[in-house]
Parts: sequence; C-alpha cells; structure tokens
Amino acid sequence: MEIIRPRTLPGFMELLPAKQAQFEKMLEILRSTYASFGFAPLDTPVIEDAQILLAKGGGETEKQIYRFQKGDSDLALRFDLTVPLAKYVALHYNDLAFPFRRYQISKVYRGERPQRGRFREFYQADIDIIGDGKLDVLNEAEIPAVIYRIFRAFGLTRFQVRVNNRKILTGFYEMLGLAAQSAEIMRTVDKLDKIGAEKVRLLLTEDCGVEPNQAEEILRFISISGANSVVLAALGAYQGKNECFDLGVSELKTVTENLAAFGVPEENFAIDLTIARGLDYYTGTVYETTLLDHPEIGSVCSGGRYDNLASHYIDKPLPGVGISIGLTRLFYVLDEQGLLNPSLCTAPADALVLPMTADPAPAIVLAEQLRGAGLRVQLYAEQKKFKQKLSYADKLGAPFAVLLGEDELAEGLCSVKDMRSGVQKKLAPAEAAAYMRSVLAAEQGALILEQSHGE
Amino acid sequence: MEIIRPRTLPGFMELLPAKQAQFEKMLEILRSTYASFGFAPLDTPVIEDAQILLAKGGGETEKQIYRFQKGDSDLALRFDLTVPLAKYVALHYNDLAFPFRRYQISKVYRGERPQRGRFREFYQADIDIIGDGKLDVLNEAEIPAVIYRIFRAFGLTRFQVRVNNRKILTGFYEMLGLAAQSAEIMRTVDKLDKIGAEKVRLLLTEDCGVEPNQAEEILRFISISGANSVVLAALGAYQGKNECFDLGVSELKTVTENLAAFGVPEENFAIDLTIARGLDYYTGTVYETTLLDHPEIGSVCSGGRYDNLASHYIDKPLPGVGISIGLTRLFYVLDEQGLLNPSLCTAPADALVLPMTADPAPAIVLAEQLRGAGLRVQLYAEQKKFKQKLSYADKLGAPFAVLLGEDELAEGLCSVKDMRSGVQKKLAPAEAAAYMRSVLAAEQGALILEQSHGE
Repeated sequence: MEIIRPRTLPGFMELLPAKQAQFEKMLEILRSTYASFGFAPLDTPVIEDAQILLAKGGGETEKQIYRFQKGDSDLALRFDLTVPLAKYVALHYNDLAFPFRRYQISKVYRGERPQRGRFREFYQADIDIIGDGKLDVLNEAEIPAVIYRIFRAFGLTRFQVRVNNRKILTGFYEMLGLAAQSAEIMRTVDKLDKIGAEKVRLLLTEDCGVEPNQAEEILRFISISGANSVVLAALGAYQGKNECFDLGVSELKTVTENLAAFGVPEENFAIDLTIARGLDYYTGTVYETTLLDHPEIGSVCSGGRYDNLASHYIDKPLPGVGISIGLTRLFYVLDEQGLLNPSLCTAPADALVLPMTADPAPAIVLAEQLRGAGLRVQLYAEQKKFKQKLSYADKLGAPFAVLLGEDELAEGLCSVKDMRSGVQKKLAPAEAAAYMRSVLAAEQGALILEQSHGE
Repeated sequence: MEIIRPRTLPGFMELLPAKQAQFEKMLEILRSTYASFGFAPLDTPVIEDAQILLAKGGGETEKQIYRFQKGDSDLALRFDLTVPLAKYVALHYNDLAFPFRRYQISKVYRGERPQRGRFREFYQADIDIIGDGKLDVLNEAEIPAVIYRIFRAFGLTRFQVRVNNRKILTGFYEMLGLAAQSAEIMRTVDKLDKIGAEKVRLLLTEDCGVEPNQAEEILRFISISGANSVVLAALGAYQGKNECFDLGVSELKTVTENLAAFGVPEENFAIDLTIARGLDYYTGTVYETTLLDHPEIGSVCSGGRYDNLASHYIDKPLPGVGISIGLTRLFYVLDEQGLLNPSLCTAPADALVLPMTADPAPAIVLAEQLRGAGLRVQLYAEQKKFKQKLSYADKLGAPFAVLLGEDELAEGLCSVKDMRSGVQKKLAPAEAAAYMRSVLAAEQGALILEQSHGE
C-alpha cells in the first residue's frame, strides 16, 4: 500500500499527551471559574451561514475567513465567538432570561499567514453578560473579579487587570474639540506601550489632525497614573465640563470602589488611561490583563462594555460586557517561556496496575477498587518483562506503579511503587488508595509559574 | 441599519441554556469516566489536509465531506475521530508510549441531507487503545467495563453491552466454504434485528451466493443465544475444525471470563453472534450497546478490535481496540423521548444573590463568601423591583435566591429562599452555604431516566 506522509497543517496546534494534559487543566480552571460566577456554558456551531457571520462586514475579517460552498449554501467557519453569540441572542431572544450570562470556550478560525505563535485554529475563552435594553454598571465591576479568580487559579499573583473607561476618553476629546478624530486618536494612544510617547505625539499631529498644544494636553492626560485614589483625584480636576466624561468617571469609580468587596487586591488592579481597545464598539469600561514579569506577552485577557451586541440581527438594544482569553496563543507563549509548571503530573493515569500473576483477574479487581477510590488507574495488559512494564510507567510519567504478584495476592496486599522516589510499600488495597491520594494531593501546585523553570 | 434575519444552519444542534447544561453533564461524565481508566485527553484539528483525510478513499465519505480550497491548500473538515487519530499516531509515533490510550470528545462534520435526528455537525466521544505491533486481548475485555461505567454514571441500569468476535464469524464461514463471501454475508446478517430471519435468508441465497442448506446453517448458528455459559458451550460444538474460529472463541472466553472481575454484572452483557459491525476493518471483538427499553434507538456505543489503525500513513502494524458514542444523536433521541431527567438543576447558578441595600458592597461580599464555599453564585446587579428579581431567579431555574436587606445586614444574616418550596430562612453566610449545599447534594439524581417522564 502506498504510504501518505502524515502531517498536521501549519498554524494548527496539535499537542502531545503531556502538553495536552496541561492545556486541559487550563480549560478546567476556566470552566469552573466561569461557572462559579453563574455563567452558563454555551456551544454554537463552528459553521455558520457566511452572510450572517459577515453581516458586519469589514476587511481583515473577510480576507481571513474560511468560506466555502456546499451544495447551494454559502458557508463559513466562525472567526470569533462574539458574532455567533450575537446571532444566538437575537435568534433565541424570547427564550432567554436577561441579563443573559454565558461562557463559551471553543475553537475559532482565521486563515492568517502562519508564523510562530500565530494560529489558524485557536481557542477563545469568552464570557459575556447581555442586558435587554439596560445593563447595570455593577456588571462592569464584576469582570475584574472574574479575571482575578482565573489567574489566581492558574497559580499566579504577579498580574494586573488594567481598566479604563471609553466615556472618559470620548468626553476628554470632546472637551478638546477633537470629537471627530477621537476613534483615530484612541487607536494611536493605544500604541503608547509599544512605540513610546514621542512617536505617539508625532502620529497625533501628523496623522490625526491634532494641534501641538492639544497633543501636549493628550500626553499629559494619559500620563496620569498611580494608585486608584490618585488617578481618580487627578480626573476630578477635569470634571464638570463634559457630561460624557463625568459619567465615565462615575462608572470608573463604581468599578474601583467595589474591588475590595469582590476580593480583588489593589495590587492586581490599575486604572490605565492609555487603554482604549482598538474596537470602536466598546462604549464603557475596557479591560486588559498583563503578567507583570512578562509584559512582552501583551494583554492575556481583554474586553469591555458595549451598547449593542446584535444590531445586525435584531432591532433591540442589547448592551453587554465581556472578556476574551486567546487560550491557544497564551498556552503557546507560556510553554515557550518555560512558565508551565513541569512538576505537575501530566500522566493520563495516577497509577498503573501491573498484573504479575497468570490469572489477570485479581489485578483487574484491584484496579477497579482503586478506581472506585477516585484514582485514575490504567490496567497494564501486555505480556512483557517486568522491566519493560516499569519502563512504560516511567515513559507515561505515572506517579505510581501497583504490583500484584503471587506473594502480595497470598497476603491480600499490593505493592505500591512511587515511580519518582523508587520507594515501594506493601499495603492493603484501601490503604494503597489512601496513600496514593494523599501523596498526589500534597503535590498540587501552580499550573503557571511566575518565573521560568529554566531560569 | 438593515437587519439580517438570524438563523442557525439546518443539521446543526444549538441548544438553549437549560438543555446545554444537560449536555454538559453528559460531557463531564464521559470525560471523568474515560480519565478514570487512564485514557489521555486528545485534541486534534477540525481542519486537515484533504489528501490525508481521504487517504483511505471511499464513496460515502468523499461525498459527505466538507472540502474546500484556501490559498493553495486542499482542506477538509474531519468526518470522524479515527482518521485524525491514525494520522496523529503515525506522525507522533516516536513520541508516544504504547499501548497508547486516548479519549477524544469532539465535533465531526458530514454534509448529509439534513433530516430529523441527523446532524451535519455532531460530537463523537471515542476511546482507543493502540498497540505497537501487538495488543493483548485483555484490552478487549476492558472495553465493556468502560461502557458499563459510563451508562451507570448516566443513571441507567437497563442497558446491555452486546459482544461478538469477528474471528468466530470469519472461521465459521470458512468452515462452510464461504470465505470469499464472508464480508458480504456478515453485512447481511448484521441486519437481522431490522429485517428479520426470513429476509436475511432470502438475501443470503439471492445476493450472497449462499446455498439454501448453508443459509440454514448460518441462521441456526446466529440464533445461538442465552447466558454466556450457554452460548460458549454451543460454540464448543463447532470447535477443532478451524483455527481462526477457535482463536475467536478463546478471545471471547477471555472477554466474558473477566467481566466479573471488571465489575460488569452478567445482565448488562450478552454475547450476540449476529453482530458484525459493517466495517471490514474490525478483526476481533466487536461491541454494540443497547438500551433495553428502547431498542428502537439502536446501538448507542459501538466499536471493536482492528489490526491496522494507520496503514495509510506508516509502515508499522498498529493494532487497536476502540469504541465511539455518537453523542449529539444520543442526546437528541433521549431528549425527544423524554428520557432526560427534568428534575436535575439546569440553572447556571445555584444561588442568585439579590442586593436590597443602597450600597451593593455587602451583597458582593456575601456572593464571594458563598462562591468560596463551592457554590455557583450569580450576583444580580440590575435595579429592578423585588418581584422582577424573583421572577428572574424563577426563569433561570435557580434553586435559591439569597436576599440581603438592611434588616439582614444589621443582624449579620442573609435570607435564603428555596425557589421551589418558597421556604425562606435567615442564616449566617457560612450556615447559608452549608444549608444550600446539603439541599443540592440531596437532589443529585440520574441524568437519564429508564422511563420517559411523560409516561
């Protein structure tokens, strides 16, 4: 038979089992944290009607989308989870309870030029809260708490949720008489971290039609920083001149004032007046999240408040607030930088039961007993030499091998071998399960390290 | 703005939140049961090189596949999880430990004519055990145990794993001198349940080139049934004439003899000599699973032993055994038949915290406390009348509403309202959490009912 050389397409992440185990742990943390805040899991099709996915239009999206015909149908693969959400909420509007809170952790598709760290198929992990007509600003205050719980559950402490409010920016540019250019200015200011203040000043005056003194004002404004109270006080000096600005400051106050109640420490939060998030559809609070020791990764969780989720599909105002984590890229970068904790167990089984008797039945019974005690147990069924069996357990990274020979059988015991230390103990099955569980429980640790384990 | 009518493509399942919650419970049971047997989670791309997906060729597959060009690439969406597994194992052969045990629960795509209960996008939940050159028959004996644990975890008792061995059939047809037609005969006999014995006899003699007396022999053979010991004894009468047959009987004995050790009750297992599974690539044990009170659903979990997983991609024999659950169809049918337990909580939150004070901070703190105690808690942030807040909790199906007014606040308590019974209690936060957890724990029940709740 002719052999076709197997390959996986470039830009598609396909992990080996140990790495997949780490990725699954991230998925589990996201699912359980999102669920703990009362977000409902949602699953929408990967394929949608192309007309519907592209209702909003737009250049980059249209170029990158996977679009194809099947029969008479013009189909496309979703390129994010927001457009399918908009369709879902519009389609099922009468069946949903608002505010509608959903999470979705699913793959999306973009036919980008593949390059290191860029993926054509990648997971997004999104939450959104959608209101029917109205949505209280307190929902915007809750989002930093969700982000905080996720990154703490990942094992991190050195991260910061950075927040701004688009109304403050819009109002500020209105005060300067720059309302018409404000979207363009925000996109320019958003680059401050990457290109620096002087480049921003240049772009503002040369490309955005901003006068030098206005550019000066803008740079002074966005340089306001410090503790929440300091920033809020500085913003106070601008108040009373523009309604939109004042509303933005009031919303920002609601968000910051409730942080402590939500259990978010001040060091994990910062007001950052440079953040605008490129997209024009954000209208209130906007979020970015940075790992403090790894600013080069950029924002690992971003989003914001918007006024109209689904205006293309339904004639009702559906305001919302949401965030998204680009999970595949985050995982890729963490792995590249050696930040995934290598000491966590990535084996598919906690224990490998090795039958050493002619009749496998006692080993099968033992495996079932250990499974019943909550362990993940693989019965090793191959007829191999003892050394080969242990070497398999090693290759798998299984923490324990459980040996059942004639001696153990006669005594009603089994031998539990800790594959890392080599220590071997003869125990009754129930004791063996309890022993392994306690060792494994003590080994729980951070999924993500603050510092590379190679350093 | 022009409104585009939102729609979801026909043949694509998109569930409302409550139904999605039920589906997620099935996913959780599958993940944890597969993991408990030491299967590693795997995730492969939805899009693959079309040449690779179609290496095996074949008519129906090629017609149904979603295939399209992007740039120079000839791409296709996977139509099952077996072909991507074959590619994966061949590609990563040197990095895997064999036996390689993986589970994958993912969506696959087939552009079938949509009709009730047929889906173009659907989940498959697969496990496979792949050996390198060899794979012990004990792995085939383990599969019924995995199936048993899954359907028990679903809440069912009235189901049966039905097993046969292709070597027995192959050997039997060799004995009759019908080796050349055996594949065709097996496909015909496989229809016995659907079309009955007389139709099978007709097809055998008219289409398969079988003499009437041979057809008689075949029908007598496949009518062997009863307890395992009875069937094995009846098979004993044919032994000693054909090597392949004898090997098959010996394998079947290994499978049945170890059932008790694996904890599978005899009533959940049956040898069924009519089962062949249409696919020619099965070479040993084959499995089907039926819900005893709902035979019309057909097999809900099927698979078997094969000799060569990846002969199209690698020049190494990779024998394996695997099963697959067509999850989307199973869920659809269970739902249609009213077999999904409606009394299980499908709300996204266990408790809805309703702030009733001007300052929301105390309610936020309370919500965080309850979350810390392991509950899924939604903070209701909207400014609505009390009645509307409770009606939202009702619509969501939340089991509890937790009220925090000035009175409760002054006393350091909160009011927990059981939304089903209407009973309301004033409790300290820690007691409230314990109370709700105990009520919820007592309400755990079967996910799938044996009898329709409409009956």
